[in-house]
Amino acid sequence: MHIQMETQGERETGRLEAFSDGVFAIAITLLVLELKVPSLFGHTSAPGANAVTNRALSGALLQMWPSYFALVSSFATVLIMWVHHHAIFRVVRRTDAYLHFANGFLLLMVTFVPYPTSVLAAYLETPAANMAMVFYAGTFVLVAIAFHLVILAAFRPQLLDKNTPRLFIERTRREYSAGPILYSLAVIAAFWSVSVSFAICTALWIFWAGTIAARTRA
Amino acid sequence: MHIQMETQGERETGRLEAFSDGVFAIAITLLVLELKVPSLFGHTSAPGANAVTNRALSGALLQMWPSYFALVSSFATVLIMWVHHHAIFRVVRRTDAYLHFANGFLLLMVTFVPYPTSVLAAYLETPAANMAMVFYAGTFVLVAIAFHLVILAAFRPQLLDKNTPRLFIERTRREYSAGPILYSLAVIAAFWSVSVSFAICTALWIFWAGTIAARTRA
Amino acid sequence: MHIQMETQGERETGRLEAFSDGVFAIAITLLVLELKVPSLFGHTSAPGANAVTNRALSGALLQMWPSYFALVSSFATVLIMWVHHHAIFRVVRRTDAYLHFANGFLLLMVTFVPYPTSVLAAYLETPAANMAMVFYAGTFVLVAIAFHLVILAAFRPQLLDKNTPRLFIERTRREYSAGPILYSLAVIAAFWSVSVSFAICTALWIFWAGTIAARTRA
Amino acid sequence: MHIQMETQGERETGRLEAFSDGVFAIAITLLVLELKVPSLFGHTSAPGANAVTNRALSGALLQMWPSYFALVSSFATVLIMWVHHHAIFRVVRRTDAYLHFANGFLLLMVTFVPYPTSVLAAYLETPAANMAMVFYAGTFVLVAIAFHLVILAAFRPQLLDKNTPRLFIERTRREYSAGPILYSLAVIAAFWSVSVSFAICTALWIFWAGTIAARTRA
Repeated sequence: MHIQMETQGERETGRLEAFSDGVFAIAITLLVLELKVPSLFGHTSAPGANAVTNRALSGALLQMWPSYFALVSSFATVLIMWVHHHAIFRVVRRTDAYLHFANGFLLLMVTFVPYPTSVLAAYLETPAANMAMVFYAGTFVLVAIAFHLVILAAFRPQLLDKNTPRLFIERTRREYSAGPILYSLAVIAAFWSVSVSFAICTALWIFWAGTIAARTRA
Repeated sequence: MHIQMETQGERETGRLEAFSDGVFAIAITLLVLELKVPSLFGHTSAPGANAVTNRALSGALLQMWPSYFALVSSFATVLIMWVHHHAIFRVVRRTDAYLHFANGFLLLMVTFVPYPTSVLAAYLETPAANMAMVFYAGTFVLVAIAFHLVILAAFRPQLLDKNTPRLFIERTRREYSAGPILYSLAVIAAFWSVSVSFAICTALWIFWAGTIAARTRA
Repeated sequence: MHIQMETQGERETGRLEAFSDGVFAIAITLLVLELKVPSLFGHTSAPGANAVTNRALSGALLQMWPSYFALVSSFATVLIMWVHHHAIFRVVRRTDAYLHFANGFLLLMVTFVPYPTSVLAAYLETPAANMAMVFYAGTFVLVAIAFHLVILAAFRPQLLDKNTPRLFIERTRREYSAGPILYSLAVIAAFWSVSVSFAICTALWIFWAGTIAARTRA
Repeated sequence: MHIQMETQGERETGRLEAFSDGVFAIAITLLVLELKVPSLFGHTSAPGANAVTNRALSGALLQMWPSYFALVSSFATVLIMWVHHHAIFRVVRRTDAYLHFANGFLLLMVTFVPYPTSVLAAYLETPAANMAMVFYAGTFVLVAIAFHLVILAAFRPQLLDKNTPRLFIERTRREYSAGPILYSLAVIAAFWSVSVSFAICTALWIFWAGTIAARTRA
């Protein structure tokens, strides 16, 4: 009977992981929908207007660099979030209502990421860039809080795999509790300098990627 | 031979669950597509227009609160629906045509949810808010009916796991049969007061979340 | 060694099924994106215009009936296609290049279905309804051909489960070979009467649903 | 203990494959969103305008051939990419940070494919067709580089299944290293002739399909 409960527990985590994987996969793929085909045509959509030349199209495609930039940045961030989600749930054996709700809040934030990304892309080269960057970095403060809540819910003795190394638990807890503070710095920086704020965000996802790389090597 | 049928049956449920999970995951992620980047530019899409300031952007983003509100509300509702779907199918061992069609109707309603959500977000602050709320709450009447049909199809002796506690079956049946009536109250309320109707809907998804939390604790 | 090949073969089918499930789930969910929020506002998107009343909104939502109609019809069709896909692959043990390409063509048609659906919804109440219906029914001719090709590829001795009942194979082959002809009748009918053509399409998906219901009962 | 690591490793690959499958499935389904319903109505969206005839609609639908063409071409390409991804990961037993990042770059490119596809469809019949084709073929240069990086990361002794035939490894390595060069030819050709460039791209996906067909037969 003990074995059956064990299996039951694992199966539950399995479907939670599969559902989360689905949400991550869709959110990461929807990012590309923010890229709009540049329109070189006038008010009519009839082809053959003057401005439609190879030079004009290459110019229009190059002018979209903030969109590509935001796309790659958000893609990398969501992908690293997925890898972290994966690493957390590898040591979780059972789920309960708390973990379901913490994970649900995290998924809400994951699906939200494409929106601030497109706001940032739309306003990165305008005088409203600061506010767009505040909105973008602010979203990641909430993402970091969500990850912290998932860790708090998942790393309880009744859910955690008994064989999880003590060091792994402590290290993960420390890293995730720092997240909201670090992204808050990016929000504050955004009021003065968009570049500095974006640099902090980029440095952070390189940092999160590094912690995973270090962990898989260990 | 008995064992093979058992396995066959479980596998069938497995693919039905996986397909349903996919639909839930996509529907919940599509909700964010309803959020449109606020346009501060004039008729031309060229950046650098007057109105594009940090103040204007923050104002525009804050003005979108009905959209955020509707997004979070629908996200929570679909997530709780998924958790319930999950809880129902954990005690189902076999599928048949009736369960397939009931589940199909439920999935149709799940994929439909993003639409009334965006209608509500678009009209929440207009004189047409009542009708938008009727449409929103009315959708959840159909969702509740769909859940009731799934329960009627799934909780038959030939499909149900023999070890399912009698109490669980009766309690679930009672809760789900109340759903359509409770949401109908929200529809009726919407003709007089949007706030009251929305409060009923919110109270209901807290109630559904509570029943799940109670069940996982038990 | 024989056992390993068996396992290898099953795993291959598993991933093909999972991928196909994903495509079906996404295509069926994307159908709702065709529903646009009715705009009661004038050329400016500022709320508070005259026409925005409860009566106007309910009128606008009711006027969208062809969209709801097309949505439900396409949803039912894609769902039944998925159930059939599921039923076919339950008796397939191995995959090869032919089955991969036939299944790929089928998935292409599945992802295409939302497009003729929205064309039909847009033109159902206009003088161009016949052509929209031809386009819609014509798509299902291609879908039926794709299913027929999948059956031709999958129901070969080297891929099929040895225990598949002879009757099941023959009956499925017969039904699927009739598909392209039956939908062609709907295409021809569409030039004269949209209603007759739509009735044929509806009758056909009830027929396909019936064959599945009969099979699961057997 | 050795067995447990083996299992751990396989489970890791399993979730990476499932996530990748999700991204492939979504990207391939999103391609259809680029197809817009042709508008025969004037500036107002009210039905019943003069131009809305069966003849006009069939003309408008036929005029969209570059969109259908680009859709089928990109669908086939993404599908073949998925089959290759599938074939690569069948011989991989473990994952590490390098493989995660290489696979992540590949998935980024996969999700990007719908964008150059719709740029090409929009400009294929305009004087800017060359630049659109350069952009389209250029995307596949990056896709080919991504596949090459995945092979470099995955085909290392510590990750690879020990039973993988030497011939398979060498042949796959050779084919994938040729990819970036072959697509670069298509980019160069696009400056002179769109048809020649498209012919090279089409020939290449027939070639990639052929290598898979040959491998599954072997």
